[in-house]
Amino acid sequence: MRISELSRRTAVPVGTIKFYVREGLLPPGTTTARNQAKYDTGHEERLRLIRIFVDIGGLTLSSIRAILAAIDDEHVPLNDLCRIVHRAMHGERLVADALHAAVGHLADARDTVDSYLESLGWVVAPDAPERDIIASVLAILRRLGWAGDETVLGPYAQAADELAAFEMASVTARASRAETAVALVTRTVLLEVALVGLRRLAEEHHLSVHFRGSAPPNG
Amino acid sequence: MRISELSRRTAVPVGTIKFYVREGLLPPGTTTARNQAKYDTGHEERLRLIRIFVDIGGLTLSSIRAILAAIDDEHVPLNDLCRIVHRAMHGERLVADALHAAVGHLADARDTVDSYLESLGWVVAPDAPERDIIASVLAILRRLGWAGDETVLGPYAQAADELAAFEMASVTARASRAETAVALVTRTVLLEVALVGLRRLAEEHHLSVHFRGSAPPNG
Repeated sequence: MRISELSRRTAVPVGTIKFYVREGLLPPGTTTARNQAKYDTGHEERLRLIRIFVDIGGLTLSSIRAILAAIDDEHVPLNDLCRIVHRAMHGERLVADALHAAVGHLADARDTVDSYLESLGWVVAPDAPERDIIASVLAILRRLGWAGDETVLGPYAQAADELAAFEMASVTARASRAETAVALVTRTVLLEVALVGLRRLAEEHHLSVHFRGSAPPNG
Repeated sequence: MRISELSRRTAVPVGTIKFYVREGLLPPGTTTARNQAKYDTGHEERLRLIRIFVDIGGLTLSSIRAILAAIDDEHVPLNDLCRIVHRAMHGERLVADALHAAVGHLADARDTVDSYLESLGWVVAPDAPERDIIASVLAILRRLGWAGDETVLGPYAQAADELAAFEMASVTARASRAETAVALVTRTVLLEVALVGLRRLAEEHHLSVHFRGSAPPNG
């Protein structure tokens, strides 16, 4: 198909498609005539994937480039692939700022998190930034005078464990590594967004029910 | 206490504290002498809250101002307060971009989401942006040729419902509206971050276990 058709199918402007090609995110089309190139469904799929990363994942171009390279590289194990995506999704900002916010209580909280993850038997990298992120949350809770130990984390860890098991079952049935890689990365990004959205709605629902009568929920 | 002491206790630079006062986020201290003001633990608590919004919530100053005003306004019901926080947390960007990404499939997906929430009996505002966010996720899944119906959402909605009930129990025991409001807002922001972090770690754990042998998990 021509670039105009590719643009129509994916709702991505022609200029943006050309930009992604120049940036090396999308392979160039096959040249068919002077100033004309043909694109196939492979381009279409890759383009949709890029848009998911940009629109839903909020990822930068350099992060997307790294993720696409990892998807394409047969030697990257799939568990590393997922880790690359997680690191790219807002992780850096959260860690640096959260560390700053919680200075002083962080070391203790980090010990709590590490022991807790070990007690769960989770196999996760010792340098996973999520360890510090979760420790920051505990440190801030402690500083506010609330319980900030593993009992706070329990229900969240259990929910996360069950959801990850569910996702794994739906992803690992794919035929090829390439298909599994794309399914894995896409679901990691999309279902995180869905989970956060549903959690917010569930909170609003429970609050509405709990404080019913104090004021109309939608008023 | 003096501003230097307030700065030391909260690890927020003096210049930043003055900036928050000028921006109306933090009430000014009580003037005790020319060029000197006294701050109390109320300032300290408010400052910590502002830092949580900035560092963990990623909120803009105008969003923070709106949330603080709602916390202080006795007439704002607590379920509205939570909604104000949710709308402020990255909501706008996600909706606009996600809508763009999923043009064409969104109306159907939105119907699916609305019917599903109704079937759950959740009391949530008809214009909650999370409805569109979740619909975008479904629309994108459909476009990729995967199942994008309420069965995908089921496990996430159930987890969200259980976690919200758990949070509600730990928050609503507070004595005053002011305490409840602060506890509610803080937990909404912090525990969302904790949940996302734990979900990522759980995914990495399940992937490591599933693909064990294909490569060393931390190599």
